[in-house]
Amino acid sequence: MPQKRKLSGSKLFVKKFGGTSVGSIERIEAVAEQITKSAHNGEQQVLVLSAMAGETNRLFALAAQINPRASARELDMLVSTGEQVSIALMSMALQRRGIKAKSLTGDQVQIHTNSQFGRASIERVDTEYLQSLLADGVVPIVAGFQGIDPQGEVTTLGRGGSDTTAVALAAALEADECQIFTDVAGVFTTDPNIDSSARRLDVIGFDVMLEMAKLGAKVLHPDSVEYAERFRVPLRVLSSFEAGQGTLIQFGDESELTIASLVQGIAINKALATLTIEGMFTTSERYQALLGCLTRLKIDVEFISPLRIHEDDPSGRVSFMLAEAKVDTLLNELEGLSESLALGPLIIERQRAKVSLVGKGLQAKMGLLTKMLEVLGNETIHAKLLTTSESKLSTVIDERDLHKAVRALHHAFELNKV
Amino acid sequence: MPQKRKLSGSKLFVKKFGGTSVGSIERIEAVAEQITKSAHNGEQQVLVLSAMAGETNRLFALAAQINPRASARELDMLVSTGEQVSIALMSMALQRRGIKAKSLTGDQVQIHTNSQFGRASIERVDTEYLQSLLADGVVPIVAGFQGIDPQGEVTTLGRGGSDTTAVALAAALEADECQIFTDVAGVFTTDPNIDSSARRLDVIGFDVMLEMAKLGAKVLHPDSVEYAERFRVPLRVLSSFEAGQGTLIQFGDESELTIASLVQGIAINKALATLTIEGMFTTSERYQALLGCLTRLKIDVEFISPLRIHEDDPSGRVSFMLAEAKVDTLLNELEGLSESLALGPLIIERQRAKVSLVGKGLQAKMGLLTKMLEVLGNETIHAKLLTTSESKLSTVIDERDLHKAVRALHHAFELNKV
Repeated sequence: MPQKRKLSGSKLFVKKFGGTSVGSIERIEAVAEQITKSAHNGEQQVLVLSAMAGETNRLFALAAQINPRASARELDMLVSTGEQVSIALMSMALQRRGIKAKSLTGDQVQIHTNSQFGRASIERVDTEYLQSLLADGVVPIVAGFQGIDPQGEVTTLGRGGSDTTAVALAAALEADECQIFTDVAGVFTTDPNIDSSARRLDVIGFDVMLEMAKLGAKVLHPDSVEYAERFRVPLRVLSSFEAGQGTLIQFGDESELTIASLVQGIAINKALATLTIEGMFTTSERYQALLGCLTRLKIDVEFISPLRIHEDDPSGRVSFMLAEAKVDTLLNELEGLSESLALGPLIIERQRAKVSLVGKGLQAKMGLLTKMLEVLGNETIHAKLLTTSESKLSTVIDERDLHKAVRALHHAFELNKV
Repeated sequence: MPQKRKLSGSKLFVKKFGGTSVGSIERIEAVAEQITKSAHNGEQQVLVLSAMAGETNRLFALAAQINPRASARELDMLVSTGEQVSIALMSMALQRRGIKAKSLTGDQVQIHTNSQFGRASIERVDTEYLQSLLADGVVPIVAGFQGIDPQGEVTTLGRGGSDTTAVALAAALEADECQIFTDVAGVFTTDPNIDSSARRLDVIGFDVMLEMAKLGAKVLHPDSVEYAERFRVPLRVLSSFEAGQGTLIQFGDESELTIASLVQGIAINKALATLTIEGMFTTSERYQALLGCLTRLKIDVEFISPLRIHEDDPSGRVSFMLAEAKVDTLLNELEGLSESLALGPLIIERQRAKVSLVGKGLQAKMGLLTKMLEVLGNETIHAKLLTTSESKLSTVIDERDLHKAVRALHHAFELNKV
């Protein structure tokens, strides 16, 4: 499928700015300056903004004081005001610079979603009005994170949803690029705060980016990455604080990407715990009860390999990983279960972390796994295999060892070198 | 014209709560309690809310920092979020109490206005959706002060516009009463802070209420009073902080009103100045130049009687009253004018106040005027006649004498007695 392009001469960019990028009057002015320059350079631009940093949390806190179980419909009515404030202020800042600008709510743009308040999905974006504004030389400034459902109710897309708004608009408008401006300069080989030799990647594949996003590289919301891939929207992550080309997330044949190594980055997740239950799989009834319990509590877990779900394992032991903050809730629930199902003892290990090699086609390369465990072993870091997938190899380690592990792996896989 | 009534058995009330009435979590909870009780008593209710106290000013201040000449369209987009926050929070508070409630923006209610951003007029209210909510036992909670124009743009009705929203909804729904909850217990014969014997009026005529509102009794917005009269909506002003029947503003034959005296209240305006210009009316050119100047600067003035606008007055002097804060702006402008038109000297008197007798048909009763000037004279207060109208007699006095004047008039006209 050929990449879609606008027919007009000038390029069209959808640019999304997050909460810290519009978090103060000064930040709004700085973004307005940047947009003004680009407008004078002949770019066509559609802006998508988040609420000013802290505003959404302030509104949620007000709601929690009044009604800890507030309906999702009313929460959406409430928190969607945050974006409406930032788009109006940005429009004023641009107008002051002589730029024709117009702020637009999700309703006014006609961002149609389903009725899942608080976590709605975009179903359709009407572009007629946006196209007419662009034709008139107006910079549309769209409230991110929000839409309307078929009944005309205000919906929100859930946290991080402004990225998805930007991608959806870029897809619908067939923009040349969707640019996500954030507080980092792009996607790095690992967290520069942990390893200062971390290198910004010029280009990264969608699959790998998706794994990085899921593994806690707080650059893009995983849903927006999937959405971008589905609609083949070229996506770029850049800093709104400093100049630079950022990282382009590219779809298509990964062999086009000039990457020196299969491993493209080291991703991490912190504040995890592992839970081991003896005697879980001596009956399938117990296993089903455990899964039911996790579903009921809405706790996401990752099973630690090797996972034995057949009853011929004499120990019947199962281990899995979950957010440390969820451990007490789960233990509470398992106590009742333990009695009725006669479960074996529970072993809890807190302060665990996950460290992952990320790159296209890693699963097939078992040599990499061997090397990873060897590198960690050389640092006397005890690692259990957690999980492998098409684009990642993850291990679970003690959180105290995390920085040492990241630096050792980053060095061993030569990620500091182009 | 007979008074319209809902056909259904239970009474329908439109209740408006201003900024201080929903100014904090505690205040929202208190209003929610009150509404819950009324719901249990079988009342049908539609709420209209202002933004939480201080919020609208906070938003205007943000805008002023970014663009002191922000477009009215973007200001409306910005400040309309204030009401959206308070309606969502109120809906949560009611739902927590088991009341079916639903917050609605001006757009969702379909409050259609013209396109005068910042001071739009309501042209039409569609009630179909509100009626269906009421039929389902839902309490609709409507964002005051806002609407949509024919292009779907967010508009605001200007300051105090939530009162107008409430009256417009009450008219469209043919409500039994429109109740304006505020921080005072009703309309008083004068400011209780000035004269503690001030008495709450049970009933007041529309004409008189309109004069009271225009004369600075900060209870109702004059536009909303006019709107209520035009659509014959019974209007009641009550305290949202304490129980009480408030003051009913009634239209129709004033002779129905059982009032002990023609004078129903003493209204005041402070922070005024008078400006006298010698030789203004020796040519009509000068007079026109002055009026043009006032129009250009958007300064409202009241001419002080006797006003001589014919050229045969040898002094050609004109005196008028204006807000003290506008004096310097006007003087600046008049300086240029003075030179080109060879005006006479200007006399400025600052720290002036206006004190008015308000009541139906006062203008025809010149005996009252004589008595007013006599009462003030007895207190050695120098008073110039300012203006008379169908429902008021106003004089201008030194602001230092204001409290003394109010107390003397309140006593002399026996307003403390029923």
